[in-house]
Amino acid sequence: MAQLTPNPSFSVTLHLEIPNRAGMLAQVVSAIGDVGGNIGLIDVIERSRQTIVRQMTVDASSKEHAEQIVEALRQHDQIKILRVSDRTMELHQAGKLSVQSKMPLSNQDELAMAYTPGVGRVCMAIAHHPEKVYELTIKCNTVAVVTDGSAVLGLGNIGPEAALPVMEGKAMLFREFGGLNAFPVCLATQNVDEIVETVRRIAPVYGGINLEDISAPRCFEVERRLREALDIPVFHDDQHGTAIVVLAALSNALKLVRKKMSQVRVVINGAGAAGVAIGRLLRKAGVETILLCDRQGIVSRDRLQDLSPQKLEFVFDESGTLADALVGADVFLGVSAPGVVTPAMVRQMASDPIVFAMANPIPEIQPELVQDLVAVMATGRSDYPNQINNVLAFPGIFKGALACRASEITTKMYLQAAYAIAALVGPQDLRQDHIIPSVFDDRVAPAVAAAVELAAREDGVAHS
Amino acid sequence: MAQLTPNPSFSVTLHLEIPNRAGMLAQVVSAIGDVGGNIGLIDVIERSRQTIVRQMTVDASSKEHAEQIVEALRQHDQIKILRVSDRTMELHQAGKLSVQSKMPLSNQDELAMAYTPGVGRVCMAIAHHPEKVYELTIKCNTVAVVTDGSAVLGLGNIGPEAALPVMEGKAMLFREFGGLNAFPVCLATQNVDEIVETVRRIAPVYGGINLEDISAPRCFEVERRLREALDIPVFHDDQHGTAIVVLAALSNALKLVRKKMSQVRVVINGAGAAGVAIGRLLRKAGVETILLCDRQGIVSRDRLQDLSPQKLEFVFDESGTLADALVGADVFLGVSAPGVVTPAMVRQMASDPIVFAMANPIPEIQPELVQDLVAVMATGRSDYPNQINNVLAFPGIFKGALACRASEITTKMYLQAAYAIAALVGPQDLRQDHIIPSVFDDRVAPAVAAAVELAAREDGVAHS
Repeated sequence: MAQLTPNPSFSVTLHLEIPNRAGMLAQVVSAIGDVGGNIGLIDVIERSRQTIVRQMTVDASSKEHAEQIVEALRQHDQIKILRVSDRTMELHQAGKLSVQSKMPLSNQDELAMAYTPGVGRVCMAIAHHPEKVYELTIKCNTVAVVTDGSAVLGLGNIGPEAALPVMEGKAMLFREFGGLNAFPVCLATQNVDEIVETVRRIAPVYGGINLEDISAPRCFEVERRLREALDIPVFHDDQHGTAIVVLAALSNALKLVRKKMSQVRVVINGAGAAGVAIGRLLRKAGVETILLCDRQGIVSRDRLQDLSPQKLEFVFDESGTLADALVGADVFLGVSAPGVVTPAMVRQMASDPIVFAMANPIPEIQPELVQDLVAVMATGRSDYPNQINNVLAFPGIFKGALACRASEITTKMYLQAAYAIAALVGPQDLRQDHIIPSVFDDRVAPAVAAAVELAAREDGVAHS
Repeated sequence: MAQLTPNPSFSVTLHLEIPNRAGMLAQVVSAIGDVGGNIGLIDVIERSRQTIVRQMTVDASSKEHAEQIVEALRQHDQIKILRVSDRTMELHQAGKLSVQSKMPLSNQDELAMAYTPGVGRVCMAIAHHPEKVYELTIKCNTVAVVTDGSAVLGLGNIGPEAALPVMEGKAMLFREFGGLNAFPVCLATQNVDEIVETVRRIAPVYGGINLEDISAPRCFEVERRLREALDIPVFHDDQHGTAIVVLAALSNALKLVRKKMSQVRVVINGAGAAGVAIGRLLRKAGVETILLCDRQGIVSRDRLQDLSPQKLEFVFDESGTLADALVGADVFLGVSAPGVVTPAMVRQMASDPIVFAMANPIPEIQPELVQDLVAVMATGRSDYPNQINNVLAFPGIFKGALACRASEITTKMYLQAAYAIAALVGPQDLRQDHIIPSVFDDRVAPAVAAAVELAAREDGVAHS
């Protein structure tokens, strides 16, 4: 397995007391650098004539590496470690979300308008005109982030409580990138009927439902049944968010290598929620040749008896391993596992191969290993170019869908979202190492929202 | 029915263009005053040599009254009405709550700590040590405000969407007075089994459950079953919040008239959630003689066949009407309907009668009618002295219960909350028109929280 680079997710804050004299800081910095720590902030907490207390944040590559860095400092007899804290854990204390009142309640008048007796009139307006719930409540701008904790990140089935930090994080992203309220709904059930029932019953408060980290194949049925049952948009981000961003990146990558969607041979490795959704969306975008692979190799005609309904959609005539599938392939899209692709396999691909190795945090193949072989490389990571990150899609998708009160999210809305993301990298900017905008590009969510809203109107699913 | 006084819940904002000359404002103010409007803010929006545009907020006593005020201004040929807006409706546009991120997400490092990949480590910490969900997520300070919309304020069964403005308001109060997150859960079901199931399934995110505006008798079963099912506090505010504040006010009122809990004859009119809970809590506080009345009169032994289990707890030997019950009574507690008590009935009460007429917005008897007959009068309204308002209780109750991670809210916690509220009106301040602190007294929630936490520890239900 490849060594991870130091990153802020394994970052510690150190308070160090060192002698107050020239050259000492250099020694500390060297000590940290010698064991591979990556220093961020350096600050002074207090100083006396003899000593100085410095605060330093240091990125490590793992928990063990962080401990190793601290140990190295401990060996240094002029450095006294006053405090070591884990920045990620510290930032999570008491959670990451806050529910705030949009207006003060500091006197009787404010109370009488926002609460009783004034609120009674607002309630009756909605009771008499149900559509006013969109005008007079948070329903117009609030998304439920729903999980059952069954497939959280790459961590597996860790349950609803352990999934909550991810759902809080997702809700933060909805606020920060989409300007929307979002609230975690972590369900103490993994039964499909119960999930569907429960989400139906809590739906009155929400303008949209974002499904998250629900394992395949249950996620397909949960989404389908909720779409049927509810008149608000239901979106399984692991499927459609991923598919939209992949399509955006792929359409730009194909421009670089001057190939057409309809002509490329695409291999998708990983037949879970993301892989299936990518395959489905690429077909709608015009890709004709898709080889879906799972752990057994190509999803092919000779495996009909062992295939789920979703995989059956992608049955291919040829059978074989992933390596076989890649022979002559133009595009590899990995949503699978670390290290399953080798440089030898990439060498068997067609000319100007495009490789999206999106397994997290360790890609299907490390970019360094094939940098001279590929035309375009993308990963799910922020420390390489071309990060395929769902946050490019879901905030704008919901922003657009809620703005026009869409009753559902259609395929055209997915496609237009993808093309809107792709279009933000103009012909002048389009390069091998820049096929997709940064997640911090603040044009993304508004552009996606506008495209989604227009597509909703064209598809007749907009209701305002 | 008594005329309501003008109040901000029927407040309009007017933009008026009037000639810019001395005496004109006086004419406008007179025109409004002549039809009973109550002017708040007066401001200047713009002025020219000829005209001035003024903004004015005017409280009315009803929607019709507000229209009458506008009509009166329209009749005045020198006043041009540019705009009329309903302040309460305006304030409710797009809802009253905002879900915010507690920290920025403006660069890759912040994203890597709050979301992937950093968050994975936080998830695993909870997966391995489930109790850490209280340390590392919003569960430690977040309350669900749960309703089925079946008994909203005095408006009846208006359903979950129309109930949402009240639940948002309640969540605001949790934030503003208790410093807690609270989020509305408006259920699209009124079936007891389904309510209980649904709340159980969404409970992982919450540190406590506040039940709200669920009609009797279903509310009793919902609360009982959720208390059994969950290891977090469950509190039906319409019952216990009301009972706690009534007990607080009554204990101070009895000090004024020098009577003892154990010796007074208390009549409770209204045998719904609030009436039953008040009766139960007063018994725990030492009241021995309670006559519960419903629409049929005293809940008495000769009505055994028509009584719910809750009413059966209060069966009284004598039967009769509310008027009969009040003969010789020391205390009247109304949680029923406007105008059901007459001055003649109050005259039949014992010496120094205490009357809490808490029907909203119109009390069981208007205070003006009995001001010379009663020793102490309280209502649910903010425009009379001694407002009995649940907001004195629930923010502090949950603040205290969550601070010590109480697994339930016990009777001792109710009682101690009530005594803590009462104790904030000291012997020097205790007067006929001041038996209970103001809802804006910022000592209330901390005092209640401290008392609740102590009681939780004494009862062995605290878990941190």
